[in-house]
Amino acid sequence: MVIKPSTAVKADPFPAELIQNRLRQLTRTGNPKVDRIMAYLLEESGKMLRPRLVYHAAAINPHDPIVVRDIAVAVELIHLASLVHDDVIDSAHLRRGRESLNARFGNHASVLAGDYLFAAAFNIINRHQQNQVMENITHTIQVMCSGEIMQMGQAYNLNIGLEEYYDKIYRKTACLFASSCKIGSLISQAGPEQTRQLEQFGLCLGYAYQIIDDVMDLVADSAILGKPVGNDITQGNITLPVILALQKEGCAERIKALLERRSSIAASLGAIINMLIESGSIAEAIEHATDFLERGQEHLAGLPEGENLEILKRTCMSFIDHYRPVLGRYHPLMERQA
Amino acid sequence: MVIKPSTAVKADPFPAELIQNRLRQLTRTGNPKVDRIMAYLLEESGKMLRPRLVYHAAAINPHDPIVVRDIAVAVELIHLASLVHDDVIDSAHLRRGRESLNARFGNHASVLAGDYLFAAAFNIINRHQQNQVMENITHTIQVMCSGEIMQMGQAYNLNIGLEEYYDKIYRKTACLFASSCKIGSLISQAGPEQTRQLEQFGLCLGYAYQIIDDVMDLVADSAILGKPVGNDITQGNITLPVILALQKEGCAERIKALLERRSSIAASLGAIINMLIESGSIAEAIEHATDFLERGQEHLAGLPEGENLEILKRTCMSFIDHYRPVLGRYHPLMERQA
Repeated sequence: MVIKPSTAVKADPFPAELIQNRLRQLTRTGNPKVDRIMAYLLEESGKMLRPRLVYHAAAINPHDPIVVRDIAVAVELIHLASLVHDDVIDSAHLRRGRESLNARFGNHASVLAGDYLFAAAFNIINRHQQNQVMENITHTIQVMCSGEIMQMGQAYNLNIGLEEYYDKIYRKTACLFASSCKIGSLISQAGPEQTRQLEQFGLCLGYAYQIIDDVMDLVADSAILGKPVGNDITQGNITLPVILALQKEGCAERIKALLERRSSIAASLGAIINMLIESGSIAEAIEHATDFLERGQEHLAGLPEGENLEILKRTCMSFIDHYRPVLGRYHPLMERQA
Repeated sequence: MVIKPSTAVKADPFPAELIQNRLRQLTRTGNPKVDRIMAYLLEESGKMLRPRLVYHAAAINPHDPIVVRDIAVAVELIHLASLVHDDVIDSAHLRRGRESLNARFGNHASVLAGDYLFAAAFNIINRHQQNQVMENITHTIQVMCSGEIMQMGQAYNLNIGLEEYYDKIYRKTACLFASSCKIGSLISQAGPEQTRQLEQFGLCLGYAYQIIDDVMDLVADSAILGKPVGNDITQGNITLPVILALQKEGCAERIKALLERRSSIAASLGAIINMLIESGSIAEAIEHATDFLERGQEHLAGLPEGENLEILKRTCMSFIDHYRPVLGRYHPLMERQA
């Protein structure tokens, strides 16, 4: 699929500052020790992609702005909680370009802070009596957690197939993207068919997002990534480009041999990445992602036209744009700059 | 207060097996890896004190048994989640007399399993559209988590006063006991005054429970505790008997001196505990607990008579009974056995 660069961006109606203020308000406890941790966590806001999806999905149809604000905040709280716990699990030292919460305040505080954030999210969803939202988001968290447990001990499993990879990234990323769009729709006056469409859009966007993330891990500079290149491979996380290469007769055996020699995997990282590029596996993975973006856009057909629908469509592109200079080297369709 | 041993116990109406089955059902994911973890966690059921409080508080008045079953299960799920996360935080190896979840399956799985349990709890509360329950329980979790964070770095703080101690055990234990009774009442046809009474009862019971737990840590055999005697002292957790001793002119200085020499604290454990006994601090702490139990019983005055009210009253005694042989050595009022 041809991914055109997004057109000049108009003023973004997403009320980032309002959302940030509400996040700060809902995580203020009055205790200096707890508040210091929460303030640190909220200092770097990240892209706020999930609350943006909630917001724009809701804003397509008539909606209560206070409810939308709070549900968008709840989704960000849940995302933050899962990041904080993931960093404890992975003993990650960096997050958003600075010390992770666990590196700064210890695992002890981080596990508790994550639990606090989950509880704060459910508390605010409940305040608006959004039972369908609660049903969806609690189920989504269960899918995410069980997915992560299922992945334990799967490092360096070279037998992982496409279906398993897609199940993995569904649980890791796509289900929360889908949920964000779905609950945005649920809190607006959208009908069930619109809600289904928006959920499917979010799902496709989530798949594409994770595939791009996995590709970038292999081909971007460490400066862009904020972590070492090839981190997934050295950690034994077998992602789409590797899976595709392992299915290609020309290079499967060589890649497999290199990946199986775990002790020298760091040393052969350059050779592995080169093989992934030269075998076309990187380009093919990008193609998978752009296919998802195309399908995602198709799911938006027939939804009420307007600024928010445009932004949802553009959201697909905006995060691709960010990586275009890198991805464009490997995927010819990405080269057509405006 | 004179604590009489509880009278001969009639058949317990608490549907322990039903609750256990429902717990198993709600934590079954279909994935063998996740299900193995959940099954291990549920193998040892513990005392199920909190779901019992929900059940009996609800059963005082007309109620929907399916709702009561599920909300009791939700409270146990939340309690389990917090135990699992606490064991990760404390690197605890033992829980309920066998390997803790983290010792058996690692921190990684335990953090995720705890999150899964929280989400499962909120999911089931939401299914019954119990907004007041959800409000109360999410708030309670926030109180518990922020309390634990506040306690960080407070080890060996000998300046802790009574007020701080009570705030600590409120957040650690009493608030979830209070919440269990309150939400049991909320899901029955109790009026607001009954709900307030039951909440206060749970609160007093929770305070007493934690004080007894803190006393037992000092004077019970390690066989009863399932952990070394004086664990709180060696970990720097300053509990009520120590606080009381630090207020007594006769022994404050000597105890303080021993507690301040942290490197030799394990060696002086016997001397410290002896001083706590001889200064009457242990007896005084037990008196605090029995006072709470008495106050708890008073809060039950005027509630609809019947088997469930009797059981709530007896609950105060039943856990004291368990420790009576030990506590009776230090508190004269406890000696009167039936």
